[in-house]
Amino acid sequence: MKKDYLLTPGPTPLPPQVMETLARPIIHHRTPQFQAILKEATENLKYVFQTNNDIFIFASSGTGAMEAAVCNFLSPADSAITVEGGKFGERWSELCTAFGIKSIPIKVEWDSSVEPKDIEKLLKSDKNIKAVFTTLCETSTGVNHDIKAIAQVVKNTDAVLVVDAISGLGVLDLQTDNWCVDVVVSGSQKGLMLPPGLSFISVSQKAWKLIETSRCQKYYFSLKAAKKAWDSVDTPFTPAIGLIIALNESLKMIKKEGLANIFAYYKKLAKATREAAKALGLKIYAKEGCSSDALTAIEVPDGIDAEKMVKTMRDTYQVTIAGGQAELKGKVFRIAHMGYINEFDILTAISCLEKVLKEMGYNFQLGQGVAAAQKVINA
Amino acid sequence: MKKDYLLTPGPTPLPPQVMETLARPIIHHRTPQFQAILKEATENLKYVFQTNNDIFIFASSGTGAMEAAVCNFLSPADSAITVEGGKFGERWSELCTAFGIKSIPIKVEWDSSVEPKDIEKLLKSDKNIKAVFTTLCETSTGVNHDIKAIAQVVKNTDAVLVVDAISGLGVLDLQTDNWCVDVVVSGSQKGLMLPPGLSFISVSQKAWKLIETSRCQKYYFSLKAAKKAWDSVDTPFTPAIGLIIALNESLKMIKKEGLANIFAYYKKLAKATREAAKALGLKIYAKEGCSSDALTAIEVPDGIDAEKMVKTMRDTYQVTIAGGQAELKGKVFRIAHMGYINEFDILTAISCLEKVLKEMGYNFQLGQGVAAAQKVINA
Repeated sequence: MKKDYLLTPGPTPLPPQVMETLARPIIHHRTPQFQAILKEATENLKYVFQTNNDIFIFASSGTGAMEAAVCNFLSPADSAITVEGGKFGERWSELCTAFGIKSIPIKVEWDSSVEPKDIEKLLKSDKNIKAVFTTLCETSTGVNHDIKAIAQVVKNTDAVLVVDAISGLGVLDLQTDNWCVDVVVSGSQKGLMLPPGLSFISVSQKAWKLIETSRCQKYYFSLKAAKKAWDSVDTPFTPAIGLIIALNESLKMIKKEGLANIFAYYKKLAKATREAAKALGLKIYAKEGCSSDALTAIEVPDGIDAEKMVKTMRDTYQVTIAGGQAELKGKVFRIAHMGYINEFDILTAISCLEKVLKEMGYNFQLGQGVAAAQKVINA
Repeated sequence: MKKDYLLTPGPTPLPPQVMETLARPIIHHRTPQFQAILKEATENLKYVFQTNNDIFIFASSGTGAMEAAVCNFLSPADSAITVEGGKFGERWSELCTAFGIKSIPIKVEWDSSVEPKDIEKLLKSDKNIKAVFTTLCETSTGVNHDIKAIAQVVKNTDAVLVVDAISGLGVLDLQTDNWCVDVVVSGSQKGLMLPPGLSFISVSQKAWKLIETSRCQKYYFSLKAAKKAWDSVDTPFTPAIGLIIALNESLKMIKKEGLANIFAYYKKLAKATREAAKALGLKIYAKEGCSSDALTAIEVPDGIDAEKMVKTMRDTYQVTIAGGQAELKGKVFRIAHMGYINEFDILTAISCLEKVLKEMGYNFQLGQGVAAAQKVINA
């Protein structure tokens, strides 16, 4: 009679409508039936990306689209700014290095958002910088970066702005076109409520110009090949058919709900989670004002091992949240509020957290966390 | 009341057991539960690959693993032989070019298998050739290459042998270790009875040595990164969790059936398909002895448009086979006998083929194709 709850920041739970599509017999991809789905899904992705730019879908993890955003626009020996505020920001630097690109990292404290002024200063000091690679929401820290403000300092330069929105797309407001974000990459297993296995990339006109001169090595992630195929409603290589059919379903759900409503709802869940933590005497890892509405990273009290706590919640009570990554391992735990996670899931997570903290000897009044969350949710 | 039949050479139909796993709630990948599955799936892949070499799984189309087989072993300006006997053989040459590698193509007539002697001659004439890229079964032509004989001429040279077994793995006998095949790549949507979205690669000790010196650009498809992660039963990037769980299921089915039985069964289905075509007065595209047991490409009679025939079978009668690709478009059609396709599916396809050929005015005696196939199957 065990019942599983998943509140990790990727993968996030699948809606039953999505699970149902995944169980259907497979269809061939070069059929009018699949082409109609690919077309509709691409259009609906544009709604979620808030863009009229081209969007392409890869069969890969989110990192595949990140690689596409490096190897299609730049050439060896080019310079690019990489905002390193966590494990995923560091991935931009690793990718640049792998492709022979000189990365100029801005090392941000992991609990803080990048200062757009620091990006501006660098861009002014070196006119040859071709791209700025940053992150919407750092999954490893629960910190948000202010993409609107960053775009403001990048848009009038020659550099393109590339945003890793793997965590955050369909959760946080990201106005690709209005703000002038050149390239947005994302993945399927977070806000889009799908299993991992698809990645996405949107490409502005400004970014397309860089593609023409790029000399990085690429084949599978070639955007030129993708563009050529998409022009005839096709993909360059066999697409992940089942996942794209599921994507089409989840995008319809998102569109029906409306982005504004969705953003407001996650904002409320995020606040509820933060208030619950505070009511339990726990500290939010992100500095005030830097915390993401997609997930919350919470520090564990002295004497409590976060890894052990997360394991107990998962293995004893079937409530799966995430521990810390890299240097935050053992120090924080992370609760997602994105994708198919609702208020009752959050209350369940808080309630289980209270249960295990109590068992581990942490001193607080049972119910205070849940009550604080309820107060926000029911306001 | 329409009923769909899928007999395309990728994707192939999904067994109900596989569809069921795909409909399950998703689980997190960094859990003992998923790690056990990843470990078991990797072990069972070794059974199907007939190898003790390392095997890694990518979230990508089969082409992703082909890219991994180029960019991990070679360096720009290296030379490699590419066997071009169809669209997928040509992909090896395209990949080499994309990575700055000098490809030395052996252009094989599309209806014929490569002559191992031609490979031997080239290898002897140029000791700097680092790799031989070839194809087990050319999906675009239905032609098989004799990997055992090719391995015989490659194994005592410095070159590594890389085989694209995307079409053919789990269908045709490919004795990776016994024959000394250094690298085998494959995909999920053919013999392995899964949706597209996973690719696989096996790597011999001889091939590992090349990895150390390779200077091609890579990140997502880095085998060093894959190896490092697999050593702790993990993946470098979020894996396609749902597809890997499904893979574990399909591999168990294959193991239970036994490779020898499976190979014999598809051999029989292939023969049945060829005999049916001949009984209808149709010509097998592949030359005698070159035809693959994974799919059969059949030429259409004069005056019959293969594309139109395939469309009618699919859109009027819901029996989906494949037309021709590239230069064979309009000239051949292709029927798969791999994955979850059995004798009754083959009889259905032949019967539908007869129905549509009759409608299109082709002159033959109804039932002759089906009878010829039955004769082989029931022998």
